Formats: sequence, C-alpha cells, structure tokens
Amino acid sequence: MRSYGRKGTTSERELVKMFWDAGFAASRTPASGSATKNPLPDIIAGNGDIYLSVEAKSSSKDRIYIKKDEIKNLEEFSERFGALPYVGIRFNGEKWAFLPPHKIPKTKDGNYRIDLSFIRREGMDFDEFIGKSKQVKIFK
Amino acid sequence: MRSYGRKGTTSERELVKMFWDAGFAASRTPASGSATKNPLPDIIAGNGDIYLSVEAKSSSKDRIYIKKDEIKNLEEFSERFGALPYVGIRFNGEKWAFLPPHKIPKTKDGNYRIDLSFIRREGMDFDEFIGKSKQVKIFK
Repeated sequence: MRSYGRKGTTSERELVKMFWDAGFAASRTPASGSATKNPLPDIIAGNGDIYLSVEAKSSSKDRIYIKKDEIKNLEEFSERFGALPYVGIRFNGEKWAFLPPHKIPKTKDGNYRIDLSFIRREGMDFDEFIGKSKQVKIFK
Repeated sequence: MRSYGRKGTTSERELVKMFWDAGFAASRTPASGSATKNPLPDIIAGNGDIYLSVEAKSSSKDRIYIKKDEIKNLEEFSERFGALPYVGIRFNGEKWAFLPPHKIPKTKDGNYRIDLSFIRREGMDFDEFIGKSKQVKIFK
C-alpha cells in the first residue's frame, strides 16, 4: 500500500484501530521495512489465539491492482511468522473487505486485480474475516 | 527506544536482522505508533511456534533507564497479542542481552534501571533468549 502515500497510512491506521477495538493487539509495519528487503505485510495483528497479517489496499477508483511480489511477500512473511495471510481492501465509500490471497483473481501477467463488483460479491466484512480466521485456525 | 532517535532505529534494525537470520519473521513497529496511544513494543517477531515482543534499548553509557510505562506497555501489548515480553539491551561494544521484564531491577520511583555489570551477569545472549522462549512456551 505504500505507493499510495499518506492515504495508505491513514487507512492502515483505521484498520489497526478496528483490530484493537475487536480485542486484538495490532501494529502497522514501518514503511522503511521494504528497504531491508524483508517481506513485510502492512499490518500484523494477534489476540493470543490467532495471528493475522494483512496487505492493505485502498483506492478512490473501482479497481485495485496488486503486484505478484506483494502477495508473495505477504505469504512468505505469514508462513515464517506463523500468521494467516489476508488482503484487506477498502474502496472509497465502502467498508473494509477481506480475502485470503488464493481467492484474489489473477491477471494474465501473474499480478492481481480486484474490482469493486467482485469484492462486493466475494469479500468478507471485518467480523466475518475475524470469525473465519478463527475457524481456519481450528481446522488447521 | 524512540527517544534515542536514529541510533535507536539502527540497533532495532540490527536486532530485526538477527531474528530473520535465526528463522523468525520480525518487524519494527512504526515510531508514530505512540501517537495512536496503543501500547507498542519496538519489535514483534514470530517463527510459527513462538511469538516475541521486544522493547529494545541501547546506550553508549554504562546504565540504561526504562520508564515504568514502557514496561507496562510492553506487557499489555504482549498479553493481548499473545507474545512473550522481553527487554533487549545493547550497551556499546557489548552483544545484545535479554531479560524478561520481571527480572529487571526497579528504582525507588517504580521505574527500571539496568547497569552494564548487572546485564553482563544476568542477561541472556540472543541464542539463550530464543532457546529460553521455546521452553517458556512449552511449559505454559
């Protein structure tokens, strides 16, 4: 999300607050994290039971592109840290919506594209996302 | 550690790299985290088995003071997130040394003080710290 600049940070902070309000401890990762070459998600959250890593994307348009490396980094970090990877999507005027990486449509060149209509149909809202993560943990 | 400015960030990065080299995924938290009033440690790390949160302190002197609120925040975050809380100490010319909060000497006013001689005697080096954390997890 860092390429979106200040706007990205603002929506990340909003999502971090939602985690705290839901009983999690959560933190953004530093923007300079990418300088270290370590694959970092935008947000890490845990509640003593489940651990989540989120790549957060927001847009004022009706389509969001995600580079394949961003998803790869999200999955690598999550596997190593011990967290469930998710993409958090926030279109202007919409609520946050969440999907696991494997449910995000790929483009022909291997990157990812999320349309507003798709996320309205397929995305989980925050409560579903938290609830679903608990189930995934149980059946893991 | 944020009050130490750039120097603090440099030693935090060093510690983050040590975690990655040891098979963990780790991230600093953003310095602006304190603006949100959420209690954040300096570093969060996980390896799919254990989760650690570290308040990192470095100094060119032979004594380090830690405010009681910093330890309180570390413990609050850790309890909520589901991580083991540790203080990481780095005196100039010395290796990183680690202690759980309850082993750090308190001053009369309820804050904390760590002397170089104390940490040389009582501190765990990085490998001991990781190994000890695994044991704590097992017996929890």
